[in-house]
Amino acid sequence: MSWGKRADFVVRNESPFNAEPPLEALAGGAITTLDTFYCRNHGDIPDIPPQQWQLTIGGMVDTPLTLTYEQLTNRFSARSVVATLVCAGNRRAELLKVRPIPGKEPWAHSAVSTAEWYGARLADVLDAAGVHRKDGLHVAFNAPDVAPEAVPVQAYGSSIPLSKAVSEEVLLAWQMNSEPLPRIHGGPVRVIVPGYIGARSVKWVHTITVQSTPSENYFQALDYRILPPEADPATAAPGEGIPLSVVPLNCDIFYPGDGEAVPAGPLTIRGWAMAADGHDVARVDVSLDGGRTWRQADLAPVTSRWSWRLWSLTVDVLSAPMTVTVRAWDDTGVTQPESPASLWNPRGYGNNAWAHVDVNVTEH
Amino acid sequence: MSWGKRADFVVRNESPFNAEPPLEALAGGAITTLDTFYCRNHGDIPDIPPQQWQLTIGGMVDTPLTLTYEQLTNRFSARSVVATLVCAGNRRAELLKVRPIPGKEPWAHSAVSTAEWYGARLADVLDAAGVHRKDGLHVAFNAPDVAPEAVPVQAYGSSIPLSKAVSEEVLLAWQMNSEPLPRIHGGPVRVIVPGYIGARSVKWVHTITVQSTPSENYFQALDYRILPPEADPATAAPGEGIPLSVVPLNCDIFYPGDGEAVPAGPLTIRGWAMAADGHDVARVDVSLDGGRTWRQADLAPVTSRWSWRLWSLTVDVLSAPMTVTVRAWDDTGVTQPESPASLWNPRGYGNNAWAHVDVNVTEH
Repeated sequence: MSWGKRADFVVRNESPFNAEPPLEALAGGAITTLDTFYCRNHGDIPDIPPQQWQLTIGGMVDTPLTLTYEQLTNRFSARSVVATLVCAGNRRAELLKVRPIPGKEPWAHSAVSTAEWYGARLADVLDAAGVHRKDGLHVAFNAPDVAPEAVPVQAYGSSIPLSKAVSEEVLLAWQMNSEPLPRIHGGPVRVIVPGYIGARSVKWVHTITVQSTPSENYFQALDYRILPPEADPATAAPGEGIPLSVVPLNCDIFYPGDGEAVPAGPLTIRGWAMAADGHDVARVDVSLDGGRTWRQADLAPVTSRWSWRLWSLTVDVLSAPMTVTVRAWDDTGVTQPESPASLWNPRGYGNNAWAHVDVNVTEH
Repeated sequence: MSWGKRADFVVRNESPFNAEPPLEALAGGAITTLDTFYCRNHGDIPDIPPQQWQLTIGGMVDTPLTLTYEQLTNRFSARSVVATLVCAGNRRAELLKVRPIPGKEPWAHSAVSTAEWYGARLADVLDAAGVHRKDGLHVAFNAPDVAPEAVPVQAYGSSIPLSKAVSEEVLLAWQMNSEPLPRIHGGPVRVIVPGYIGARSVKWVHTITVQSTPSENYFQALDYRILPPEADPATAAPGEGIPLSVVPLNCDIFYPGDGEAVPAGPLTIRGWAMAADGHDVARVDVSLDGGRTWRQADLAPVTSRWSWRLWSLTVDVLSAPMTVTVRAWDDTGVTQPESPASLWNPRGYGNNAWAHVDVNVTEH
């Protein structure tokens, strides 16, 4: 099943359906079209008609609440947020060149996409249930998709801190790029947690629980964690490693692609960058000599605090092999680690090393 | 004048007085004693008796206000915050090994210290003046100390975003480690902005202005910015470069010191780490083989969101030259850039590369 995606989608796994667009499609604009947006799933895709969907809000709230689709979409004021979602495993392919990472999809550069999401603020829905606004609480999400990879097998779930959950950018979304949220992307309703790894934007959400501890779901307590390099993921205990949440500062190159041949002469290098925690991208540096000297890329206008920022730089290239290296700086002066080798971890998450492509420049 | 500091203080400049403690003194505990806390100044130290000090709050407020020392210390409820201050130029010495940085103090490892600060919340004082709580405003601080290095020569000042200024950790402090705030550290009253570069914690503050743009003071608009490597600081225009604010994730080694000889056998390596933006330090890695393999340091308990976290690791070392490399990870899975060479910038700010010391291990 192609789920309305482009014919040239790169399918990493048919079941569960995991696929990323070709880079040139992703480069099409600041907003990714529905047929191009990457797909990352842990189980079969649920089929829930809107009139059957409902959401239960419970746990540390004064008045537990169940909402139908009609109630959610009519009772709460809705808003749009342009947000980039990125799979925590994006750019894993570069880590795989360092050491093997068994059992994980070899995502290349395109498990990242941007859409305009439309829905109710999660904060408003939590307030309607009389959420206890205490420090240190967590908001857990449960979904119906069953993940065979989980140990033990279980439906998907995860959690975010209450402090993030009540931020104005966090939505219960039922539209994506002004269309009803497609089934493949979590329709009829999903959570959107801008700035966090995609795994926290739980699709087909049916239960929200306010609780004093993070979710004990496999994907919160065990997977989606950065283990130290020497750890064995098969024997790691729940809670080991650094749980992923905020997406670190990162960037990547849309064009040229790695290994691509390009003609000598003017070359426009293009890509994206995104800062952590809602910070802005202040500078993107491009090097054609392996990081010895740098030139600054032109930054496209900011579309949203929670969206990637596109950049480009036109350079003149001579006929020869060439490496393009790119790094971003955020508005506090933070830049990225240099090398994937330093970032290798047993589950292959969070690669935010400098971006590199090797290019072969040929005569006209 | 020694300002009550230890006899073994390393003075970088007598006038204005800039000095850092020896590393072994800094390693003395999570709280730095008054005689050990680093000194970073841009002008002569003002001498303001508490009964003459006053603070004016103006700009975008409903009721501009002037407070005496007695009014500030009696009218507002006071609180303590343990916070690490760090000079944006700390670890510049490592950048100097990459390329020269003329006209700047060659801070080594000790322009960083931690104290318990006690004072009124800046938020409460701003509220007493009826601050306009609008998005995008700034809070500018002015002080009386005149900086000969500024172009043109001017009294010290800077600003922080209003969103940070009203955070509960930001203080107008009149005590440091339960003592009246020493004159050398900004007494009778200074601003404390935990998590921001030390330069924003303005000493001897006399005027606070709420305004729609950042401070135009030399130290906000021109200095304390990360310029791209190819820029000439002498011709940089106001607003060029990335203004420093939040201190990036960083770590350093207290012991052993660079170039030190240590006996073969058990060696306890010790140091500090601090995450950005109030995040926690999740892991500190120590390598004795240049980053090929790593071991995890033991982390001391968290004393405050805004304080460094001390760490230690006992290893067995053999008689040979050895490099100790250390890097920290924050609670979102971010780690530090590898090399000072990648971070070199014309004013030498923000070095948060992996920490290194070369050690000579000798026979017992």
